[in-house]
Amino acid sequence: MAKIPVGILGATGMVGQQYIALLANHPWFEVRYAAASPRSAGKTYREAVAGRWHATAGGGFPHPSVWDLVVQDANEISRALAANKAGDCAFVFSALEMGKDEIRALEEQYAAAGFPVISNASAHRWTADVPMLIAEVNPQHTDIIPAQQKARGWDRGFIAVKPNCSIQSYTTPVYALIKAGYEIKRIIVSTLQAVSGAGYPGPASLDMLDNIVPYIGGEEEKSEKEPLKILGGIRDGAIVPAEGPAISAHCNRVPVVDGHTACVSLEFGGQKPHIDEVKRVWREFRALPQELELPMAPERPVIVREEEDRPQPRKDRDADKGMAVSVGRIRPCAALDLRFVGLSHNTIRGAAGGGILNAELLKFRGYIQ
Amino acid sequence: MAKIPVGILGATGMVGQQYIALLANHPWFEVRYAAASPRSAGKTYREAVAGRWHATAGGGFPHPSVWDLVVQDANEISRALAANKAGDCAFVFSALEMGKDEIRALEEQYAAAGFPVISNASAHRWTADVPMLIAEVNPQHTDIIPAQQKARGWDRGFIAVKPNCSIQSYTTPVYALIKAGYEIKRIIVSTLQAVSGAGYPGPASLDMLDNIVPYIGGEEEKSEKEPLKILGGIRDGAIVPAEGPAISAHCNRVPVVDGHTACVSLEFGGQKPHIDEVKRVWREFRALPQELELPMAPERPVIVREEEDRPQPRKDRDADKGMAVSVGRIRPCAALDLRFVGLSHNTIRGAAGGGILNAELLKFRGYIQ
Amino acid sequence: MAKIPVGILGATGMVGQQYIALLANHPWFEVRYAAASPRSAGKTYREAVAGRWHATAGGGFPHPSVWDLVVQDANEISRALAANKAGDCAFVFSALEMGKDEIRALEEQYAAAGFPVISNASAHRWTADVPMLIAEVNPQHTDIIPAQQKARGWDRGFIAVKPNCSIQSYTTPVYALIKAGYEIKRIIVSTLQAVSGAGYPGPASLDMLDNIVPYIGGEEEKSEKEPLKILGGIRDGAIVPAEGPAISAHCNRVPVVDGHTACVSLEFGGQKPHIDEVKRVWREFRALPQELELPMAPERPVIVREEEDRPQPRKDRDADKGMAVSVGRIRPCAALDLRFVGLSHNTIRGAAGGGILNAELLKFRGYIQ
Amino acid sequence: MAKIPVGILGATGMVGQQYIALLANHPWFEVRYAAASPRSAGKTYREAVAGRWHATAGGGFPHPSVWDLVVQDANEISRALAANKAGDCAFVFSALEMGKDEIRALEEQYAAAGFPVISNASAHRWTADVPMLIAEVNPQHTDIIPAQQKARGWDRGFIAVKPNCSIQSYTTPVYALIKAGYEIKRIIVSTLQAVSGAGYPGPASLDMLDNIVPYIGGEEEKSEKEPLKILGGIRDGAIVPAEGPAISAHCNRVPVVDGHTACVSLEFGGQKPHIDEVKRVWREFRALPQELELPMAPERPVIVREEEDRPQPRKDRDADKGMAVSVGRIRPCAALDLRFVGLSHNTIRGAAGGGILNAELLKFRGYIQ
Repeated sequence: MAKIPVGILGATGMVGQQYIALLANHPWFEVRYAAASPRSAGKTYREAVAGRWHATAGGGFPHPSVWDLVVQDANEISRALAANKAGDCAFVFSALEMGKDEIRALEEQYAAAGFPVISNASAHRWTADVPMLIAEVNPQHTDIIPAQQKARGWDRGFIAVKPNCSIQSYTTPVYALIKAGYEIKRIIVSTLQAVSGAGYPGPASLDMLDNIVPYIGGEEEKSEKEPLKILGGIRDGAIVPAEGPAISAHCNRVPVVDGHTACVSLEFGGQKPHIDEVKRVWREFRALPQELELPMAPERPVIVREEEDRPQPRKDRDADKGMAVSVGRIRPCAALDLRFVGLSHNTIRGAAGGGILNAELLKFRGYIQ
Repeated sequence: MAKIPVGILGATGMVGQQYIALLANHPWFEVRYAAASPRSAGKTYREAVAGRWHATAGGGFPHPSVWDLVVQDANEISRALAANKAGDCAFVFSALEMGKDEIRALEEQYAAAGFPVISNASAHRWTADVPMLIAEVNPQHTDIIPAQQKARGWDRGFIAVKPNCSIQSYTTPVYALIKAGYEIKRIIVSTLQAVSGAGYPGPASLDMLDNIVPYIGGEEEKSEKEPLKILGGIRDGAIVPAEGPAISAHCNRVPVVDGHTACVSLEFGGQKPHIDEVKRVWREFRALPQELELPMAPERPVIVREEEDRPQPRKDRDADKGMAVSVGRIRPCAALDLRFVGLSHNTIRGAAGGGILNAELLKFRGYIQ
Repeated sequence: MAKIPVGILGATGMVGQQYIALLANHPWFEVRYAAASPRSAGKTYREAVAGRWHATAGGGFPHPSVWDLVVQDANEISRALAANKAGDCAFVFSALEMGKDEIRALEEQYAAAGFPVISNASAHRWTADVPMLIAEVNPQHTDIIPAQQKARGWDRGFIAVKPNCSIQSYTTPVYALIKAGYEIKRIIVSTLQAVSGAGYPGPASLDMLDNIVPYIGGEEEKSEKEPLKILGGIRDGAIVPAEGPAISAHCNRVPVVDGHTACVSLEFGGQKPHIDEVKRVWREFRALPQELELPMAPERPVIVREEEDRPQPRKDRDADKGMAVSVGRIRPCAALDLRFVGLSHNTIRGAAGGGILNAELLKFRGYIQ
Repeated sequence: MAKIPVGILGATGMVGQQYIALLANHPWFEVRYAAASPRSAGKTYREAVAGRWHATAGGGFPHPSVWDLVVQDANEISRALAANKAGDCAFVFSALEMGKDEIRALEEQYAAAGFPVISNASAHRWTADVPMLIAEVNPQHTDIIPAQQKARGWDRGFIAVKPNCSIQSYTTPVYALIKAGYEIKRIIVSTLQAVSGAGYPGPASLDMLDNIVPYIGGEEEKSEKEPLKILGGIRDGAIVPAEGPAISAHCNRVPVVDGHTACVSLEFGGQKPHIDEVKRVWREFRALPQELELPMAPERPVIVREEEDRPQPRKDRDADKGMAVSVGRIRPCAALDLRFVGLSHNTIRGAAGGGILNAELLKFRGYIQ
């Protein structure tokens, strides 16, 4: 089977690099088009990232297959269309780093031009007819795409997004409990987030040596609201967020390179599961990506650790290709009902890896060809 | 006024060193006796800590006034008695690092021998007639000392302890609200604790580089229960813990040298104060140590920071000699009622500095002479 | 081809774990025997490393193929012999962590019992008839093995060691220049070494947060002398160290997980190569492991980086499976002749990976079957 | 005695803040004028640094005495002249952070307007008639000031600078040996430099977590050349750099907040002192600032540490108010003659503290009034 040619918008940034790294040997997709800011345009990809290649996969270099791609200006959609005609760009991953309004407009232009846009950006997360996907949680939200296309007069193009990296460490475990029949009323979560989540350069080392910063701009709002859209339903061509659970997030930046940790307290409505039942639910949780054996899907979406001091970011972030959520310290909560610690890789599960998994789902569903 | 001569038990350990550093120029107390493990006994203090002096005050050296103190074996109380007779040891700070049972027994032996023992250890925290003091919160608990002395047949000796370092970042702010008339029903706190809290060597660097550890043995239990004793009352010669609030603690070790951060969510019973009222209460909070102008007392026990990203451990731990609790990010909680971030210096406010303040209070009350 | 069954002595320690991780899918060797201290004996490998698995390959778990190996007491050679008879242990990698004398004796007992011993320990590095191998530099030193066996009356058993991790970042580049015909008279090297080089727990986090330690016990002596044995010749059944270059090493421990960096100044005797010639020599350097295409051999032993700020440990340590030495900042020296920065992965190239490459060389030469 | 009123140019930056912190209780000088970029102009000092106050002295706040100073635009010298007339600015410390050419011109304008300018910037370090002072090493270079004033037609104004922070850890110890009669031919130094040396934000945390960067732009050139000007002589109204020693510097950025460490190898010409003699020279070294008992002068400019693993940045940088250079690991060098490790506080000794000491010297000499 010939691989589907894919373009990366924002290919030289932190998340763009992670896309390049993760797609190096992908069985379905192949990077054949790279676009970034005008500053990088015209350079080969290798030149464009020289001195700022951060992905460590590949031992400090991008994969040779992309070295000689000439980076295009992401604002010039005509270039992408030409690449499309040449068979080099069937759809795009958006890892754009610009103002929110610019990203929103540009992604719409790509979609209008016929490109499926799988976006990592926050710009369209609250657009009512744009699905915000965690492939294991709300794959059915892809059903809104035809309505999106129709309403906007788009043909094959559409926009699908993924949620913020901060919510990945608790949303899937919480969903697994909901799917098992438990009602969840309240969630209080404190996150300890890695610096790579802020892109490069991100936090100054003066703020991250012998220090933590108990604040990340905009992150608590995202962490509290995005799960509700993901848990919501489709009505009249729009995704209607769920009304609960009530979520309170304290977001902290800590001196960790990759891997977001979440300390979670839950309150159940109705029946409260025993700790052993919670572990069983998480151990046995499988969803559509696992059934379909999508290439990027982790074998087990939730890995239960029994050690008293796990999960830990450096040791557990890479579990199952960086795509699994590791949970541990599952115990009763003295103020609500249940406590646990969740951990996921923010630039893999929480960014490029999650985007690729969404693209695999969309390909399976026929939206990407 | 002649200074009161004081001894340090466990003088060569992490907390013992901090006592030495903080007492270097104390107006009331003077270190004239140092005891530690048999391994250090017989050495001068300077020799005993050579190569393992961690307190940075003094530019890498202990204060010259203690260089030539000959370290004694802490197990040999006869030495302390001899020092007492020589006018060199009126009371002791216990910073012992041994098994809990050994510490409990040894501290009792010092008290029986006539020494007031101001302890940093956890051994006697749950002994019903031993006060666990935060000088701004429960100074009235010193009233139990006569009952303690009587029940045990001790003359001038007694034991008073201080709580765990992890609770200092939220207990005083919570108490200030209680004192202002607000009922607090539930507290959920996630702590980000500094490595110095574990003594030396403490956590391995392999666990603290590009990593956090979401577990500290025994710390969550202490963090949940100790505030209740501090908020309790005296009945029949025993301190009876308060029945609430319900406290749930997630304790994390993070790569920070000094300074424990706490992300706190509170639920009020009855009336819920407005955010501005909470800030006013904290800004205006003063207690006995401030009224008495005790030397180690911070001017303001709680410092309210208005910046959106403070308090931070490296920048705020030293506020008011390391004795103030800094609070910030005071805002409503989406799941309970109120959220804030508290921070205190764990080896000053949370250990040696807190012990010295307690000793100052006990001196004022006449228990130390 | 059936894989050769191999045992790991010290299988539960830091380097032992790295052997387990690197051999997970090795084309020639398969771990079928694991031995460690009596404390671990009798446990399955998975139990024995629970809570202290540090290798991050595998996402926080050892490879499933070794989970159920029952760990044996490394002191009981009878167990290894039984495994050998059962076809489970043809040779051993020694990653023992004990006193030097004990390791020396135990490794000799294994060799006497018929096992080729490929050792990571320093115990036998200065035994005159034991080769200390960097496969790209002195593969010819394997020729001493028959003399070693004869002198000691050993049959198939023998001992071969690898040098200290600190020298890998400069010895291969220096050798490449020597091989190209340049004489090197003096080397001054400052190393910035990762904490994993000290095993677990290794340096305390209190010494590695906001700090560096300009001292590593015994490391400077090893760094100055070991290259001389490697560059030496065989005479009368003994390896005679080279007489130069004079090497001066400043060894520093820095807060880096993996990857030793070396800042090197060189003085040439005779002809002094131009910077471009130095780069050419390093870029073109290939040696026996490359010619033989040994599985663990890097494609290029020395990778020349042109960026002004590379190599860097986190970004470059994994180059070519962690087996290449990355060099950069190649420039004239204002006090000697040439300066550069070298970097290698200390637990891969500098420990388990280097040991495996040596075993591959010894298998090719027929010493391991 | 009334204090001399002083202004800080670049008062809101990293070094400017350090000046504010160190001058809080200075016996001779008092900050009464603060100037910075137009962005800060018009704000009170407290507002201008809100959220970016990095100096930890003062517990996270600048000293109250400067809270209400209205920050002026440093480009508007008329403001400084008005302050001068009002008795609020007798001279200025320059901690400007701009382009080199702009700084050079602006400092000259201040000097022309009658202000002594004590600068931390590199702009005028190689201006032949501008002294580059380490108060213990070349105080006699202040003698060039009259020639500077005359050549430029300046009245009371002049410019004096201090050298780069990187050279402080070895230049004073090296000078002490020269002063004791030893000739030094070659120096090879590897520095491990703290991130605060780069100002704020400085290095990205992604480059300083689990990493070091073996490159600092322009730093090696400064480290190699500036000592030669300091060791030079005055001839015909110009400072003529010394011709030696030859210095080779490898400059590395490491994850340390404050404190530059230097690993130094020296070659002597002529007589080579014994290690004990070297220690004696350093222990006994005293210079003009010590004789004059200048307020900021350390009691001992060079502190010899005997522990095998000292000096270390976090433990030793604050020695003697952060003004002493700590040296240790004094031992023979296997390639040159002598090795040692030097350490100094880069934002105190190496920046604001060094500047203040220079101002004290200049006041003593009558150049500041």
